[in-house]
Amino acid sequence: MARVGIVMGSDSDLAIMAKAAEMLDKLGIAYDVTVISAHRMPDVFFEYAKKAEEKYDVLIAGAGGAAHLPGMAAAITPIPVIGVPIHTKALDGVDSLYSIVQMPSGIPVATVAINGAANAGILAAKILSVADPVLRQRIKEYSEELKDGVLAKKEKIEAVGYEAYLKDMK
Amino acid sequence: MARVGIVMGSDSDLAIMAKAAEMLDKLGIAYDVTVISAHRMPDVFFEYAKKAEEKYDVLIAGAGGAAHLPGMAAAITPIPVIGVPIHTKALDGVDSLYSIVQMPSGIPVATVAINGAANAGILAAKILSVADPVLRQRIKEYSEELKDGVLAKKEKIEAVGYEAYLKDMK
Amino acid sequence: MARVGIVMGSDSDLAIMAKAAEMLDKLGIAYDVTVISAHRMPDVFFEYAKKAEEKYDVLIAGAGGAAHLPGMAAAITPIPVIGVPIHTKALDGVDSLYSIVQMPSGIPVATVAINGAANAGILAAKILSVADPVLRQRIKEYSEELKDGVLAKKEKIEAVGYEAYLKDMK
Amino acid sequence: MARVGIVMGSDSDLAIMAKAAEMLDKLGIAYDVTVISAHRMPDVFFEYAKKAEEKYDVLIAGAGGAAHLPGMAAAITPIPVIGVPIHTKALDGVDSLYSIVQMPSGIPVATVAINGAANAGILAAKILSVADPVLRQRIKEYSEELKDGVLAKKEKIEAVGYEAYLKDMK
Amino acid sequence: MARVGIVMGSDSDLAIMAKAAEMLDKLGIAYDVTVISAHRMPDVFFEYAKKAEEKYDVLIAGAGGAAHLPGMAAAITPIPVIGVPIHTKALDGVDSLYSIVQMPSGIPVATVAINGAANAGILAAKILSVADPVLRQRIKEYSEELKDGVLAKKEKIEAVGYEAYLKDMK
Amino acid sequence: MARVGIVMGSDSDLAIMAKAAEMLDKLGIAYDVTVISAHRMPDVFFEYAKKAEEKYDVLIAGAGGAAHLPGMAAAITPIPVIGVPIHTKALDGVDSLYSIVQMPSGIPVATVAINGAANAGILAAKILSVADPVLRQRIKEYSEELKDGVLAKKEKIEAVGYEAYLKDMK
Amino acid sequence: MARVGIVMGSDSDLAIMAKAAEMLDKLGIAYDVTVISAHRMPDVFFEYAKKAEEKYDVLIAGAGGAAHLPGMAAAITPIPVIGVPIHTKALDGVDSLYSIVQMPSGIPVATVAINGAANAGILAAKILSVADPVLRQRIKEYSEELKDGVLAKKEKIEAVGYEAYLKDMK
Amino acid sequence: MARVGIVMGSDSDLAIMAKAAEMLDKLGIAYDVTVISAHRMPDVFFEYAKKAEEKYDVLIAGAGGAAHLPGMAAAITPIPVIGVPIHTKALDGVDSLYSIVQMPSGIPVATVAINGAANAGILAAKILSVADPVLRQRIKEYSEELKDGVLAKKEKIEAVGYEAYLKDMK
Repeated sequence: MARVGIVMGSDSDLAIMAKAAEMLDKLGIAYDVTVISAHRMPDVFFEYAKKAEEKYDVLIAGAGGAAHLPGMAAAITPIPVIGVPIHTKALDGVDSLYSIVQMPSGIPVATVAINGAANAGILAAKILSVADPVLRQRIKEYSEELKDGVLAKKEKIEAVGYEAYLKDMK
Repeated sequence: MARVGIVMGSDSDLAIMAKAAEMLDKLGIAYDVTVISAHRMPDVFFEYAKKAEEKYDVLIAGAGGAAHLPGMAAAITPIPVIGVPIHTKALDGVDSLYSIVQMPSGIPVATVAINGAANAGILAAKILSVADPVLRQRIKEYSEELKDGVLAKKEKIEAVGYEAYLKDMK
Repeated sequence: MARVGIVMGSDSDLAIMAKAAEMLDKLGIAYDVTVISAHRMPDVFFEYAKKAEEKYDVLIAGAGGAAHLPGMAAAITPIPVIGVPIHTKALDGVDSLYSIVQMPSGIPVATVAINGAANAGILAAKILSVADPVLRQRIKEYSEELKDGVLAKKEKIEAVGYEAYLKDMK
Repeated sequence: MARVGIVMGSDSDLAIMAKAAEMLDKLGIAYDVTVISAHRMPDVFFEYAKKAEEKYDVLIAGAGGAAHLPGMAAAITPIPVIGVPIHTKALDGVDSLYSIVQMPSGIPVATVAINGAANAGILAAKILSVADPVLRQRIKEYSEELKDGVLAKKEKIEAVGYEAYLKDMK
Repeated sequence: MARVGIVMGSDSDLAIMAKAAEMLDKLGIAYDVTVISAHRMPDVFFEYAKKAEEKYDVLIAGAGGAAHLPGMAAAITPIPVIGVPIHTKALDGVDSLYSIVQMPSGIPVATVAINGAANAGILAAKILSVADPVLRQRIKEYSEELKDGVLAKKEKIEAVGYEAYLKDMK
Repeated sequence: MARVGIVMGSDSDLAIMAKAAEMLDKLGIAYDVTVISAHRMPDVFFEYAKKAEEKYDVLIAGAGGAAHLPGMAAAITPIPVIGVPIHTKALDGVDSLYSIVQMPSGIPVATVAINGAANAGILAAKILSVADPVLRQRIKEYSEELKDGVLAKKEKIEAVGYEAYLKDMK
Repeated sequence: MARVGIVMGSDSDLAIMAKAAEMLDKLGIAYDVTVISAHRMPDVFFEYAKKAEEKYDVLIAGAGGAAHLPGMAAAITPIPVIGVPIHTKALDGVDSLYSIVQMPSGIPVATVAINGAANAGILAAKILSVADPVLRQRIKEYSEELKDGVLAKKEKIEAVGYEAYLKDMK
Repeated sequence: MARVGIVMGSDSDLAIMAKAAEMLDKLGIAYDVTVISAHRMPDVFFEYAKKAEEKYDVLIAGAGGAAHLPGMAAAITPIPVIGVPIHTKALDGVDSLYSIVQMPSGIPVATVAINGAANAGILAAKILSVADPVLRQRIKEYSEELKDGVLAKKEKIEAVGYEAYLKDMK
């Protein structure tokens, strides 16, 4: 059964939000992905948020511009909501970031970086791992993988020199 | 019967939002004032927005920070919604402004200046005056008043000089 | 007879501002479109703004950079003026937004998002619908259309999964 | 036994960060509060972060300016880290916010609003409530309290009018 | 006869704009000071700007927020217009600055610093000095005065040390 | 003999700064163009600025990033200095703008828009026209040209409609 | 003999810049403090910068607004220049920061935080310590002091609890 | 033996950071280049920073987004640390700049411009030249080279005119 709901305000956000899904896949966590606009279908959105607790342990909500989806979800459901500010052409995603992170007292949204959907996936996993030692172990292994990835780069650049390394990158 | 609903997310916005009410009083337009938090009482807010069309011709909605109230109201009701971004200590109201003005296509909020509640009142009147020549006349008279106010200042400063004028201001 | 005047400071804004016209077409509202620079032909602009009340119920004014057209129009005509801040290369349209939204008390401009011309069209319609139940009905139908559009996406992504959906988008 | 560690980079942040502690008290969650500067005692900080998993389920880390504490903690411990950007005189806390929220892929920090320590406490509770139905219930009751608080204000302002309400606030 | 017209949108700008007048006094240049709101009395403003060429060689125009006065004046009169962006509470005068400096091609405003009215006075003098060697000489003497002022400080701090100097400042 | 000196900090600014030269050509004003880096050849720059008064009536100085050239020139020469903030990749020219416009009291730089070199040319002409009625007349004719250009567009769009007009633009 | 020159553009910066001097005192490094305006006495400034190499090993230069002093000094002298952006009322020191840090290739300024004069002192010491093991040792001891200061706070807050600690701070 | 360590958080920064290496090559200073992520391998990073004093006289550290590497390095090692804020897509490198420059008192990072890696190399050389007259001489020669480069451009543009010069650039 899905433990995480991934919801976004528009399918134009999907290319970014897919990274959250991929990360959850990698960490072995079941999830649902859907598209619900808080602005264009407020009643559907309301129902979704109200029932979120029955279906999910964590919500990941992405939105851009005047991004109300994550905050309104957090206003309705008691489960933790992770907000992903989507980059915007006009204001570089600063509008999305401010609309998501500057929530009033009582209604937190766990905000990640602009376009930081992969981190939203990891954060969801970290939250679930509080009561799931197996998942915690998998997160640690993923961190080791990340570390090994950079270690390999470190060793290579120290071995071949930055110029050869740079040439290889192209 | 009230034609304008004035709603704000917190009574800490009241000192600012009161200027909208005062302006409507001045222009002879009936209104209601209330405090409804989209975040702390989303269901009450939803009901309010759904019934707005039955009760009002225009909504004026003020909110600060991650300011979702005006945009969510505009998502629910078909009547015009005027948004007032409330000044915030942390980000000078830029967060409020972006959260209100950067709405996605389909759901406009008529945004006024940061703390521009008086202008929200005038804008509501201008909207109502589209079908109300008597109100239109009153708006014009108010504009004349504004003009006369500055004209008196213009005449005084030209007559007494800027130094005497400045001294009088203190 | 036209009910809405659409005016912009430069024909370089036309590709954006055309979306306001298209929206008014869609909602069955007659309008005029013209190009008048408040800076390059201030007297023509003045005349236009002075006569706006005779010809229109609402003005939609778009401008970029030091964007004075919407605010100066609002200073001259008593009808509601909707301002569209045009995106600029240098400052991402923040200059346009601030020049339009931060009007002094007494002279509101109903500001929409940067490049939000489609929303300006809808807002004009919402304003006109205050005294026009037929138009109100059309606006509601348009909202339903928008909702149906997202609903279809919601159903598709839930049915086929996000990966297939994403593949289809490309 | 404490479930949440509250750590800040300087005791000048304590007046703000205390609100996280108060919220945890209110929700019946045990916690520790300490002051550790990632910059002035990096080895002590490293030890703290390394052992965090043994002692806590969630970390709340507050810092201002070039705010590295939350992100570095998240780099070291696998438990969820909530970051509180502290308001700064020079840059209004935008420096703190960017330093905390813009984490690279792999190392999320659950960021709340500038000075949003109370929300950090609630977010920690929401995270713990994923596996704790009793706590979940308490969170819901707290949300009801918040709602009742605004409802009382709503009823009062509708009953006495905004002018009397405003007078009472002073 | 006055050579410089000083105009501002509101008498709330007078305390700042007075510094332009004082500077012109100091440099022996005759000027007029008046208050004309481009927004509240657009026709009076238009007349003023149209006749500016007959009366003045240079205009100094100060305005805050959506500051249209300097740019609209420059659109109407062929004489050089110096713009003074007035500091604003909400946006620190960034709104004023952008509204004044970001003029479109064809209509320059010579913009000085936020609240830089004294510099507007000096710039007007520099402009007039292009054809006035006596005034040019006076400007050079003023520059020498400024230099002597700092030189005296330089000598004092080098003589008494920074601690004694700082004590004297208090 | 040249009346305007155009100087820029780097030949990478030339494509922009050329517009100032073209405008001066158009208005029949002689000028010199050169490249002098205040940072890479401070002594050459110093000499240039010191001798500017002998050779020119107005300086136009363009620079980007930490743009010190216009302000340092204004510190050395008594003639009016017009500053052109060059757009930068990193900070969109906000760095250039702030470095040029925010001059301390005593040392004004007449700042135009980011990349506003054409306007710098017109502003120089407006300054020279204070004592040159023939040039003033030419400036007015240029303004008429600008106006006629927009008028033609206005007439066309009103005649053919915005859709045909838009099609023609492509 | 002095090894560090501390220079600022105005004595209004002295209260901030004094912290650089105090830090150098603490670390046993001789220095001079003076006030030289690059804008009001460019020739004196030029001489100062040209002779800096004979007198000093490092320059610390503080300036606010369009802050040209540090960058112009770095253009003239080959010794390392540390820039201190002074906080400004209008733009919070962002203007100072951009004017100092965004130097073109070839002319670096070692920029510290807004109002970060104490850090400028420490950075000067770190630079001098490259060839001075005794000074290096003193810097390490100072770092230990800083650490001990926070350690004492850490121990106290852990011993007495945050509430008692907070009460003691008031 | 290497005197400068160049370290970056990700090999995606290498194309930029290579310019620091090239500059050190040009100035005849030995250096090492490596890739170490403070976030993905905090223990390796810690060791690197702890041993930096044994191996290097100066560190150059580049990072983007929530850029903690330079500041954390400065917290651990007593040698001077030069920070290079890497340009980011989302926030134009303002996030990187603020994360690096706004360090708390006690822990300076010598910050250069966004993407200013070449300047980081020169700054490192300037620091080393405090005790190395031969290197100082080389830096002066490099400055002369820079000057000669611009001088040649100056002479060319003055000789051939800006139009021919511009044509040649294309």
